[in-house]
Amino acid sequence: MITYDLSLHGNLPKYEYLYRCIRGDIRGGTLKENERLPSKRALANHLVVSVSTVESAYSLLVSEGYIYPKRGCGYFVSPGKSSDFHIPPYEEADGGEKKYRIDFKANKCSLSLFPMNTWTRLMRQVLSGQDAVLLETVPFNGLYVLRRAICEYLYEYRGMRVSPDQIIIGAGTEYLYGKLLQLFGTQCVIAIEEPGYKKFSDISGSFGTLWDYIPMDESGIRTDILAESRASVVHISPANHFPTGIVMPMKRRRELIEWAQASPSRYLIEDDYDSELRFSGQALPTVYSLDENDRVIYMNTFSKSLVPSLRISYMVLPKQLMDLYKKRLSFYSCSVSSFEQYTLAKFISEGYFERHIGRLKRHYRNRKEQIVREIQNSPLMFVCEIQDCRVGTHLILVINTRLSEEEIHNSAESKGIYLALMSDYCRSPSMAYSHQVILNFASIDPEKIPLAVELLVEIFREDIRSCGGFQKTVTSAD
Amino acid sequence: MITYDLSLHGNLPKYEYLYRCIRGDIRGGTLKENERLPSKRALANHLVVSVSTVESAYSLLVSEGYIYPKRGCGYFVSPGKSSDFHIPPYEEADGGEKKYRIDFKANKCSLSLFPMNTWTRLMRQVLSGQDAVLLETVPFNGLYVLRRAICEYLYEYRGMRVSPDQIIIGAGTEYLYGKLLQLFGTQCVIAIEEPGYKKFSDISGSFGTLWDYIPMDESGIRTDILAESRASVVHISPANHFPTGIVMPMKRRRELIEWAQASPSRYLIEDDYDSELRFSGQALPTVYSLDENDRVIYMNTFSKSLVPSLRISYMVLPKQLMDLYKKRLSFYSCSVSSFEQYTLAKFISEGYFERHIGRLKRHYRNRKEQIVREIQNSPLMFVCEIQDCRVGTHLILVINTRLSEEEIHNSAESKGIYLALMSDYCRSPSMAYSHQVILNFASIDPEKIPLAVELLVEIFREDIRSCGGFQKTVTSAD
Repeated sequence: MITYDLSLHGNLPKYEYLYRCIRGDIRGGTLKENERLPSKRALANHLVVSVSTVESAYSLLVSEGYIYPKRGCGYFVSPGKSSDFHIPPYEEADGGEKKYRIDFKANKCSLSLFPMNTWTRLMRQVLSGQDAVLLETVPFNGLYVLRRAICEYLYEYRGMRVSPDQIIIGAGTEYLYGKLLQLFGTQCVIAIEEPGYKKFSDISGSFGTLWDYIPMDESGIRTDILAESRASVVHISPANHFPTGIVMPMKRRRELIEWAQASPSRYLIEDDYDSELRFSGQALPTVYSLDENDRVIYMNTFSKSLVPSLRISYMVLPKQLMDLYKKRLSFYSCSVSSFEQYTLAKFISEGYFERHIGRLKRHYRNRKEQIVREIQNSPLMFVCEIQDCRVGTHLILVINTRLSEEEIHNSAESKGIYLALMSDYCRSPSMAYSHQVILNFASIDPEKIPLAVELLVEIFREDIRSCGGFQKTVTSAD
Repeated sequence: MITYDLSLHGNLPKYEYLYRCIRGDIRGGTLKENERLPSKRALANHLVVSVSTVESAYSLLVSEGYIYPKRGCGYFVSPGKSSDFHIPPYEEADGGEKKYRIDFKANKCSLSLFPMNTWTRLMRQVLSGQDAVLLETVPFNGLYVLRRAICEYLYEYRGMRVSPDQIIIGAGTEYLYGKLLQLFGTQCVIAIEEPGYKKFSDISGSFGTLWDYIPMDESGIRTDILAESRASVVHISPANHFPTGIVMPMKRRRELIEWAQASPSRYLIEDDYDSELRFSGQALPTVYSLDENDRVIYMNTFSKSLVPSLRISYMVLPKQLMDLYKKRLSFYSCSVSSFEQYTLAKFISEGYFERHIGRLKRHYRNRKEQIVREIQNSPLMFVCEIQDCRVGTHLILVINTRLSEEEIHNSAESKGIYLALMSDYCRSPSMAYSHQVILNFASIDPEKIPLAVELLVEIFREDIRSCGGFQKTVTSAD
């Protein structure tokens, strides 16, 4: 007869432990299809438990479909319950994911930089200290403590006067953009910088919203072309435009505010995602702060400044948009877990976020200087010009090369180096944006920098050779 | 001269500590607008640090806009930097949030039931053990370990054969419904049960998708009316329909599958959100398992079974929809933090989730029995019939009352009891759904149950009195 050690039932009630034992034997195939189980009384005697324990276990097995009763004959194992279902423990490579020796495209932060110990400690405090609060439903726009911490941060570091009532916390910037598009409705046309944040057009497309690409000049998006477009909402990143690295000057900021003021349906979306990582130059006031007529939506994220796998972003809405949001979209629950909202609130308000940003800046500054130095000391200098970006984690190399954009990509690919070209962010080929390599150094290990530069030299070997770069380097090294 | 104790700089570089001290004095108003700062050399001598430390601190203050240089005269405090900005530490009540003595509407789980210790322990393991992995970007559809754990769970408890490739993890069911609506496009019309999950029509509205309400009979949504509607996608919750508590019988499940097979654009969305909390009756196979033609999307959430403030849900897509999703929507990053995905994966695969569900079931069964007992022993029994639901955390009281729906609501409100009526989930008044009180007992403390029943008696006092209920009770109690 089937035999189990019921003294091992632990926290489980005995009947439930017995249920699991029998279920395991059915699944594992020890008990075969249509095999008869012992009678309740017989099994109870055998296992030295009460008949009611066996009864409860059998009735659970019946209710879960593992066994079936036959009138007057007892219980039998249901067919098709033994397990032949197998799920591989690791994801089988789908062939699409290539591993690169050097990844100049990844937007991962440096793993070693995340303050794991502090974060863990704060999370433990949260988990151990506030049981009751933690399980409460969170307001649609996020926990007040976090919204408050963000307001204080924005005031101290960006000079912005924002009330917690204006803030909406969401699971990532993409999520919040989606909510904005729903708020504006599909009649609204969005203006997107070109080159620029391509994903915003993907998001708009997925919501059925139309968009216009507006070209850039050296100050940012062209307001003359914007004024003639159909757009009523424009997405800009004045603190650090990706990929050009342009910091929008005050004049252009004011022009945009003027454009927005010309009609009550016009809004600017100010994406300030990388502004914390400013390495030089003075902080310009945000467009949000310059505007006096509630025309600016301010967006920022902790996924970039803290760690990508934390999905916490926020937006600041002007009052009239917040009222509309409350009316139309506040039935959506807040999309971020309250554990992490509490932890992040502590992280900011106890000063750790500021310190973390300081550490990031020192780290990235050093890394950038190292890359620039390595490039300057390499034969690459004979064919390239380095455009240093004042904010963020990338550099631009303008290259004097005979290679086409496609040839550069292919050559990089074959050498195991993953990089982006400025033209990747444009719809159509343009001389102004060709032969520009974007080096995002956020996830490059310092000891891999020499290899990275060596591989870049390899890509442009013919160009360097044809202007005598290798000879000159050898000569000067002598 | 300004004086600070630089030995307190701790982990910060000295210049940054000095920067913060001066910034604090500017913000606090100790250093006044346009006041001149000491010269670098003087301050360096005074604080016994190198001139370059002061230089770095000053240059940071300039770059952050706190001070400004005047050629040949030194540095001065910028105007408008002292802080008069105050954010209240707690959210000021907006008057809309009323506190109730008894809340029969809240969908909070019982706080004491969440296995906080286990969760904390697993989260600590995750945080301490996998630093590197934790910071990697998560695939668009969620971490493989979590998708795999869900597949095993679905196989063991719901008999479903699902591959991890079919699963998409998202920040809440609402989020995933949104993605589905984007996948179907605005040409698609959704069928929604009435009465039913009202939020789905809110979500559809926010995406510009049209919907039809389809009435129910005692087996669930009416397939005859569905067949004549414009709808190509229908939302159902066969395991436990809210608010009617109907468990859809096999025949209706098969009819729906037949309906879906009639056209390649038809799909069923099976919302299985409460199925774990089944108290009686045999588990029926999911519609997903019954279907053989890839017409069913399966949805479930951990917000209900675990804790509402964890925003983790998932959906299982048929292959052709997953292919479409990959093509159109996989540019969206996964919306759930990887910390919590790892923790939940451990929680499921190490058996804690199963145990937790067992505990929940025992707890809710007891609570339900207690409420039923209290009602049966009260004069309410003279005017009401209890409809027990086999699944989930609510009961329905069908009341023989002369009060209108509005009068019931007003009376409940005035007594501090928060409850829903079946008619709240219908668009238009219907005799079939009037005078039915829905008691969601998920967040009612056991010791408050007598008070809750007492307040219900108060609401229907006149009805009970007019059929002599109080006299009879008094008599029988004698």
